[in-house]
Amino acid sequence: MTEYNALFSRLTTTLAEASRTPLYKRFASAIKDAVRDGTLVHEEILPGEREFSQSLSISRITVRKAMDELEREGVVFRSRGYGTQICSQFEYSLKEPKGLSQQAVLRGKKPDTVWINKSKIHCNAEIGEKLGLSTGSDVWLLKRIRYVDQQAVSVEESWVPARYIADADEIGISLYDYFRQRQIMPVTSQSRVSARMPDEALQQQIALPATVPVLVIKQLALDAQGNPLEYSISYCRSDMYVFIAE
Amino acid sequence: MTEYNALFSRLTTTLAEASRTPLYKRFASAIKDAVRDGTLVHEEILPGEREFSQSLSISRITVRKAMDELEREGVVFRSRGYGTQICSQFEYSLKEPKGLSQQAVLRGKKPDTVWINKSKIHCNAEIGEKLGLSTGSDVWLLKRIRYVDQQAVSVEESWVPARYIADADEIGISLYDYFRQRQIMPVTSQSRVSARMPDEALQQQIALPATVPVLVIKQLALDAQGNPLEYSISYCRSDMYVFIAE
Repeated sequence: MTEYNALFSRLTTTLAEASRTPLYKRFASAIKDAVRDGTLVHEEILPGEREFSQSLSISRITVRKAMDELEREGVVFRSRGYGTQICSQFEYSLKEPKGLSQQAVLRGKKPDTVWINKSKIHCNAEIGEKLGLSTGSDVWLLKRIRYVDQQAVSVEESWVPARYIADADEIGISLYDYFRQRQIMPVTSQSRVSARMPDEALQQQIALPATVPVLVIKQLALDAQGNPLEYSISYCRSDMYVFIAE
Repeated sequence: MTEYNALFSRLTTTLAEASRTPLYKRFASAIKDAVRDGTLVHEEILPGEREFSQSLSISRITVRKAMDELEREGVVFRSRGYGTQICSQFEYSLKEPKGLSQQAVLRGKKPDTVWINKSKIHCNAEIGEKLGLSTGSDVWLLKRIRYVDQQAVSVEESWVPARYIADADEIGISLYDYFRQRQIMPVTSQSRVSARMPDEALQQQIALPATVPVLVIKQLALDAQGNPLEYSISYCRSDMYVFIAE
């Protein structure tokens, strides 16, 4: 089938390279690369086992082992009637303010965070209004790049009232873990979801092609008493994320 | 300020045209055109009254009357400290399955619908699964272009189990009005929000520039007993919509 020609030609090249890694692992890894750079997109249906085997001159067992690994890692899912589909998007619930890290872990993915900025600033009128503070109040500005399974997926800026963070250096991968350890419990959230094209800074920060839109999530997290704990603006790769609201 | 040069030059041209419409109305209308074609974007801050007046050689009273009208129409909002900002996005709550039409009316906007397709079909496996029906069951496929204040904002495809619609010709602007008149009450919904670039068909259907991403909302609406009433996929201009989840 001509629609897969680009994929087959690419896989053929990759598999022809000399390597001591088992063939099925290199095959699986090449599929993941194709997902990462957008050659294969979310919900795309992959060729069948026989077609892969014939086009790439590899055994059907190799194809099956690769697909098994990709399924375990959540890169593909198999369904009756649809065959094997790419699953490149990370589902994030807007309902529970669990934080991305915990949601990633719950889904068997490995979250990571690189902090770009942790600094105490005086908030402007807009942030003050969101957090129920007067303009100029002390807040922590936290800015980070988030990773899921080693891939940069979003840039997030948060503002937290100063009284909730004694020492920002103690915040590790997850701000919400820091909160929970101190019995600060985000229980509800309000989110605004929009989309736009990434600006140049964002393209560079998360190695995002200029053609991939970003989902912009503005979220306010509150505790059980309705106190605002965190206001955040996240810029998320639209090819990696889907947001769930119930 | 140089940043407004393109806007001023455009407004100057428009206002110089001969017309019997009052100047302030033509000024307001030119601002709306600039929002519609993306020259002015959501949350952009407009020049001040004095700057408009000097650059366009019109009176400050004319500027003020135009801004008053734009504020009444929800095209701009004024805030202390920020000045006058463009408000081009339509807020849509994911929480209550009220339907776009009712939400638009509640916000003082005028909704409209152009039906592209109303036909009874046999559902495929995916739609059947969403609606709790077996593959091949009768469902109504409803496809429409939605307008808010005469501007095309989204394309929506819905699938409704055949038993909920006796005569699809009786559905007017709002499917949810049709439901309510028959005591069919959508009370909860599950939504998946993602974003992507518009394909050519979509660009043509709603006159959308190829550079504006679309928000893709997949929503299942259920009644109080948890019966699926409607599964829909909406493709919404990202420069016109923001989705709210609480």
